[in-house]
Amino acid sequence: MNTNTSPIQNVTVIGAGVIGISWTALFLAQGLNVVVNDVAADAEARVRQGIETLKPTLAAMGMPIETLHERLRFEPDLAKAVAIADAVQENGPDRIAFKRKLWAEVEKHAPLHTLFLSSSSGIPTKHQARDMLQPGRVLIGHPFNPPHLIPLVEVVPHVKTAPETAERAMAFYRAIGKKPMLLKKEVPGFVANRLQAAMLREAVLMVKWGVVTVDELDDVVTHSIGLRWATGGPFVSFHMGGGPTGFAGFLKHFARGVQLLWLHSKISPVRFSGSLNDKLLAQVADSFGATPMAELEAARDHKQLALLRVLHAGQS
Amino acid sequence: MNTNTSPIQNVTVIGAGVIGISWTALFLAQGLNVVVNDVAADAEARVRQGIETLKPTLAAMGMPIETLHERLRFEPDLAKAVAIADAVQENGPDRIAFKRKLWAEVEKHAPLHTLFLSSSSGIPTKHQARDMLQPGRVLIGHPFNPPHLIPLVEVVPHVKTAPETAERAMAFYRAIGKKPMLLKKEVPGFVANRLQAAMLREAVLMVKWGVVTVDELDDVVTHSIGLRWATGGPFVSFHMGGGPTGFAGFLKHFARGVQLLWLHSKISPVRFSGSLNDKLLAQVADSFGATPMAELEAARDHKQLALLRVLHAGQS
Repeated sequence: MNTNTSPIQNVTVIGAGVIGISWTALFLAQGLNVVVNDVAADAEARVRQGIETLKPTLAAMGMPIETLHERLRFEPDLAKAVAIADAVQENGPDRIAFKRKLWAEVEKHAPLHTLFLSSSSGIPTKHQARDMLQPGRVLIGHPFNPPHLIPLVEVVPHVKTAPETAERAMAFYRAIGKKPMLLKKEVPGFVANRLQAAMLREAVLMVKWGVVTVDELDDVVTHSIGLRWATGGPFVSFHMGGGPTGFAGFLKHFARGVQLLWLHSKISPVRFSGSLNDKLLAQVADSFGATPMAELEAARDHKQLALLRVLHAGQS
Repeated sequence: MNTNTSPIQNVTVIGAGVIGISWTALFLAQGLNVVVNDVAADAEARVRQGIETLKPTLAAMGMPIETLHERLRFEPDLAKAVAIADAVQENGPDRIAFKRKLWAEVEKHAPLHTLFLSSSSGIPTKHQARDMLQPGRVLIGHPFNPPHLIPLVEVVPHVKTAPETAERAMAFYRAIGKKPMLLKKEVPGFVANRLQAAMLREAVLMVKWGVVTVDELDDVVTHSIGLRWATGGPFVSFHMGGGPTGFAGFLKHFARGVQLLWLHSKISPVRFSGSLNDKLLAQVADSFGATPMAELEAARDHKQLALLRVLHAGQS
């Protein structure tokens, strides 16, 4: 459903890769006017084709898909592309030099009220904004792939960002049905990718030790903690697992055991290198690696969509 | 649906705590005869009341709930309780001395074909079975709480367990609609709890650093990686995130960045102690801690059930 009541109507999407296309489709389906800026000659063809591919999912999420293409423009000239933007969503290459030059240029040509949002998961705002007159205007607006489907957007302000600018970014994402989370500090990887990485380390360790194979590890996750964490995060889950006193009970009864597991894991090095990578890749090839990627993705998106309907109905 | 075609018909449940009651209700709903062994005087009252509480969930999962109580017996004498058991599911206190004595006694009185299964998450089979004549008869059959709802059962054989015994344990759990996973090595915490612990460490670190609060951390999880891991585990997810070459692409493009996050986390100590615990508990109290536990649990079970229907329809 298009519940967009934000003052933001004109959005410029910079960079028409997978993430840029997903944002573009979502913005259009939420009733916004979108200008796509990308230097590639085939950008328009790829974006319009990408939108067609995403249409069924957007429709399944209850969004109108009739007039998407009519409100979409392409403008390879950056200055012109941002001239009337209320918000810029940047999805260019994750290279510091690229971002620095880009934002300094965008700042010259965009209106004073324009929100500058970067999808980057890797380049902190302090690096991106170094050459700007007002570096506080750049915020991270990091989606979880694919942006049109997964609700989370991590919003990370520059240290000089005014609170009201951060709030405008939050309001923008809320208005288009996302679940923005404002991080109070900028840390490498932000929150979601750090959590992912932490679990991956333990998952790789289990395969390295030969306890399970990669597909068995995945089965463990989808049949236990994945189900748990789709319905409640780790803190509320351990609160419920702590008995009548909740999280205090967890700390009393289980904290020591958990810390022993941390220690047992910490003393075991994990490094992606020759023999470990070979083992992982051989097991991948022997299991889901044999299924065409498009088939895996279609199955995932189908389940994901069904889940979102069950869990987040009415939130977007 | 009761799809039980296993030769196991008589199960003895030792220990009628929360886990024992959940197993009992599931076994009964899957058409088995159950004997509950517990020394507490109020065991029968508690178990029969517990079954009533779980009935709506079992019914919602499509299991027949009409004759549960008729096939349930109570036998405080251990020797008599296991006399005709095809399988024993043990849920007693996690104390080595208790388990040792218990299994040595059970071995004396149970038939030769009986499967000996321990729900323990903490006591390895080598310790549990030390005083048995045939220590290979004890296996871990570790459920994920609550056992009647979450599919995963981690099956961990003793080093002396015959492969056909492990296979009978797997077949037993499969027959009652569970998703048993056979671990090839016994490691502290088994797999699911190690993964949980690893993610909890990073979650606690994010709160310790003040990046997010406990409820914000939970929101990040339920709106991103929780959704992802309910539909696919970390390996297939990173395979899909690796581009056309799959997991090889992930290793090429992202492994280094992931390892930097591991390092950044590793050098930051996390220990459940005074000021950190105070911070966690204060944030819990300010958010979901204010909601009655029964209300949190009901909401979780409701969502969990909806999810299982969407994701695992036809598996049980």
